[in-house]
Amino acid sequence: MDIEQFRKAGYQAIDRICEYYYSLQDKPVQSQVEPGYLRKALPDAPPDVGEDFQEIADDYQKLIIPGLTHWQHPSFFAYFPTGCTYEGILGELYATSTANPGFNWSASPACTELEAVVMDWAAKLLGLDAAFYNASEVGGGVIQTSASDSALTTVVVARSRYQRASPEVSTQQLVIYCTTQTHSLGKKAGLVLGIPVRALEVTSEDRYGLRGETLRRALEEDTARGLRPFILIATVGTTSSGGVDYLEELGPVVAEYPSLWVHVDAAWAGVALACPEFRETCQLEAINKYGDSVCVNFHKWGLTNFDNSCLWVRDRTDLINALDITPEFLRTKHGDAGTVIDYRNWHLGFGRRFRSLKFWFVLRSHGVQGFQDYIRRTIRMNDKFIALLRSSLLFKLVTAPFLALTVFRLVPPASSLPLSVSSPPQPDADSDADAETEIETETETDSATAPLSEPQLNALNRAFYARVCARPDIMLTQTDLLGTFCIRLAVGAARTSEKHMQAAFDLLTEEAQATLKEWDWTGAGVNGVKEVNGINDVKEVNGINGVEAVNGVKVMIMNGVNGVNGVHADEVDEPDEARDL
Amino acid sequence: MDIEQFRKAGYQAIDRICEYYYSLQDKPVQSQVEPGYLRKALPDAPPDVGEDFQEIADDYQKLIIPGLTHWQHPSFFAYFPTGCTYEGILGELYATSTANPGFNWSASPACTELEAVVMDWAAKLLGLDAAFYNASEVGGGVIQTSASDSALTTVVVARSRYQRASPEVSTQQLVIYCTTQTHSLGKKAGLVLGIPVRALEVTSEDRYGLRGETLRRALEEDTARGLRPFILIATVGTTSSGGVDYLEELGPVVAEYPSLWVHVDAAWAGVALACPEFRETCQLEAINKYGDSVCVNFHKWGLTNFDNSCLWVRDRTDLINALDITPEFLRTKHGDAGTVIDYRNWHLGFGRRFRSLKFWFVLRSHGVQGFQDYIRRTIRMNDKFIALLRSSLLFKLVTAPFLALTVFRLVPPASSLPLSVSSPPQPDADSDADAETEIETETETDSATAPLSEPQLNALNRAFYARVCARPDIMLTQTDLLGTFCIRLAVGAARTSEKHMQAAFDLLTEEAQATLKEWDWTGAGVNGVKEVNGINDVKEVNGINGVEAVNGVKVMIMNGVNGVNGVHADEVDEPDEARDL
Repeated sequence: MDIEQFRKAGYQAIDRICEYYYSLQDKPVQSQVEPGYLRKALPDAPPDVGEDFQEIADDYQKLIIPGLTHWQHPSFFAYFPTGCTYEGILGELYATSTANPGFNWSASPACTELEAVVMDWAAKLLGLDAAFYNASEVGGGVIQTSASDSALTTVVVARSRYQRASPEVSTQQLVIYCTTQTHSLGKKAGLVLGIPVRALEVTSEDRYGLRGETLRRALEEDTARGLRPFILIATVGTTSSGGVDYLEELGPVVAEYPSLWVHVDAAWAGVALACPEFRETCQLEAINKYGDSVCVNFHKWGLTNFDNSCLWVRDRTDLINALDITPEFLRTKHGDAGTVIDYRNWHLGFGRRFRSLKFWFVLRSHGVQGFQDYIRRTIRMNDKFIALLRSSLLFKLVTAPFLALTVFRLVPPASSLPLSVSSPPQPDADSDADAETEIETETETDSATAPLSEPQLNALNRAFYARVCARPDIMLTQTDLLGTFCIRLAVGAARTSEKHMQAAFDLLTEEAQATLKEWDWTGAGVNGVKEVNGINDVKEVNGINGVEAVNGVKVMIMNGVNGVNGVHADEVDEPDEARDL
Repeated sequence: MDIEQFRKAGYQAIDRICEYYYSLQDKPVQSQVEPGYLRKALPDAPPDVGEDFQEIADDYQKLIIPGLTHWQHPSFFAYFPTGCTYEGILGELYATSTANPGFNWSASPACTELEAVVMDWAAKLLGLDAAFYNASEVGGGVIQTSASDSALTTVVVARSRYQRASPEVSTQQLVIYCTTQTHSLGKKAGLVLGIPVRALEVTSEDRYGLRGETLRRALEEDTARGLRPFILIATVGTTSSGGVDYLEELGPVVAEYPSLWVHVDAAWAGVALACPEFRETCQLEAINKYGDSVCVNFHKWGLTNFDNSCLWVRDRTDLINALDITPEFLRTKHGDAGTVIDYRNWHLGFGRRFRSLKFWFVLRSHGVQGFQDYIRRTIRMNDKFIALLRSSLLFKLVTAPFLALTVFRLVPPASSLPLSVSSPPQPDADSDADAETEIETETETDSATAPLSEPQLNALNRAFYARVCARPDIMLTQTDLLGTFCIRLAVGAARTSEKHMQAAFDLLTEEAQATLKEWDWTGAGVNGVKEVNGINDVKEVNGINGVEAVNGVKVMIMNGVNGVNGVHADEVDEPDEARDL
């Protein structure tokens, strides 16, 4: 391919991307292909002689696009959103066109310098303390691939700091703290590093956030047993339910254990810090006071194309001490002073893409106000959905919504149930783990749900969710909150407007009614689950939080709790069509 | 930015990329900016109100491009090449336009399926054993970010396999094997995981490749000491000098230690396996026989845009056992059988970019023949350079060239030296570490170099290299081979043609002559180094191999050794202009 062939193919690519976005709403949200579809469609070896690019570009349309799940579809509410904006696409295009691995300042100065500047811009956008700025030359920010990478890097760095300070402590004594609600990144860091992970207990009463007392007890217990917890991975906005650990309480406890590193994983929720009205909810003050490191993924809910996981540390020396393998005679005055950053020493790998370019494009093109408008609009869309849920007799919120995330389930009113159900069935020997769990369900107001036991409700919701999964025109994911099977709806696609929220609610109502209608009440709703598309094929939530059923715990199902968003549903005044991003 | 604004900005981006490549040869290879140039040029916070995209795109031209080192410049010979083709750019553009994190099959089936197919294509291109194909459903291939990530992942997986098989072995007993010539990825994996690394000795006589006997002795020693080496990182084509570990010898030794995992890092050289004539040199047969895992970075010398580090494993179960955190009840029949891959369990992170798309574009557009043509052409370009070096009285090869990499140094003939130099000077108390090293220099033919001691030659070459570094019209990197300071020239930029090789040689000759002319012979060449642009600012080689001076070892400086390339310099018949990639 020569330059002019590239120009032609490049224009066509741009046109086809435009066409993709013009037609996006008409596509199924989730790919409808079967496993193995592509291997069947492709030859089993590369061609011997090169092919014409037009053929390749056409195959992308014909073979690849149907195999994509459309994360930018306005009815994509699964997992968390993944950013994709025109500015982000252009940033990626320019960045890849010069292909710089950027591991060192000198390997391409602009790659390092722009990352250092833009990470400071982002820190200011979020209100992070100046200690985290690269300009401080003490702390600093670096772009990683994913929150898992950011966490793994941080655990390595924290371990290194701990072991330098306490060389007498053996590796066997180390332990990583997270909670039962922490993203899988906690367990994965433990797996990778061969360090045990203790998942601290949280409760639904505390909205799945870690309390100071729980941390204190664990530290006392483990220290007494000779263990050395060296890092706490705290979360602001858990994947399952948007839970927030109580950093204000955790901080003073940590102060008594100064060698405990506090990593704040605000991968999803952190971008909301751009709006002053969410800073208290997201505990900005405590992050700034107690966090040794903070992670915010701008590639999730922050308008930037994957990958752009922003990691800030309070002291860059910790990073460099842990990860630098530059031999002494190559150290430079600039490097040591921090005026030249060699980013290869700030992450686990070596080469790195020029990720700051797209981020710069996004922040400049949107500006602070544009960024805030987007965050607020998606939260208003979620509030619209919450208002609809509350108007319905079929659904209940499982926990208070947080920002742009709602966790709910189907809880049919007693009036919709056949009479035979009103006496709870005996658990069956063949029933699943949930059925063996003694769960005391408390609801605020609605005794009408009493006829269905918790295992029945879980089974009913699995059936309901399987129906929703089979729909091509929406995508949501499931989760399990301490034994309660529930459904998550996360708003974030830039093109989602009120009409999509209404459509989502209508669709869920329709499938809920169909689930109830087809439910095998004679089997009393536990063993009578009709498999729709196979329960095994249901989509799992990003990070698979809280999937282990916890036997014997109290689960409080909260109905009608006021949102903690600071924006009420009745303030929704967004025009029906979202601004085109 | 709306769709039509994107179309306009997209066309412009394509045009500007074309313009970049039309004008590439006229740019300085290495960025000429000073540290901090960009922070001075940019505001210290994001704009409050969004800016017009034209302004942003213009700033990219004005502020970013001058800060880039142009890795695609035909006179870029530093580090190793980094792939950048029009097909690769288009692949990245299409991939980012739909933004799929692709961690699971269901998150976007095409991302997983294309990666599985294209990794099999690449395995076939290179002649890897069918055991490594994804189609085998036993082994398989996965795209990682960099060779460092591939190695770290492999070390984690090997440790996990070892500890499952030998639970009685404590973590303290584990040790990673590599050589003194292994890329920094070996030491970094050890740093990250907190596991000691033993760098086995190699010699210049063995062309910096690890011998079977060295491995056997080390295994015996360490086992006797109670240590448990669980992985050997072997290299085919070291960064410093293209050294190749003797896999045929290592294999039978490893056979006696079946729990030792063999990872073959062929990050750079591996793509040459696409050409049958290089398979013996690159030890394909032994890789297929003994390798538990193999890494080849197609983003280096393989025409694909960064990142595309291909990692194959012989048994995917090892990967999944080590990295899978999917709870039991979410496992599926397809997933367990391997008919559906969940790639999040094949790497350390979580989300992943759709990297296989660009790879598919490149392999289809070039075909096997086009890919081979490119590899062969770059090797011929290197052979041209070697022929020129050999025709010169100023330069000597430090070791036999390998594929498209040449390591050489300035070794002035006695006739060019002032008379006073003919009696070697006494080492000075203030001299650097090299000066304290007893090095016995052997040269094949040329006693005319005898007047300069090894420390003097190192100092002279540092001065020479500093001059070369100051040139805007070329870029090379340095290395240190067991105490010998030398210069690397790696060919790989797609636009490099014979005229660029001639120009490189002419430039090097010019700077060598100027170095000799300005050399402070009165200081006898050790303390009399004139600093040109500051020795501290010299570029370091990717991976900083072999940088530790090793005292007391014999260094054989090889002159005029026949290349091991299988292509002789006199076969160079390439038209002067390379095919436009």
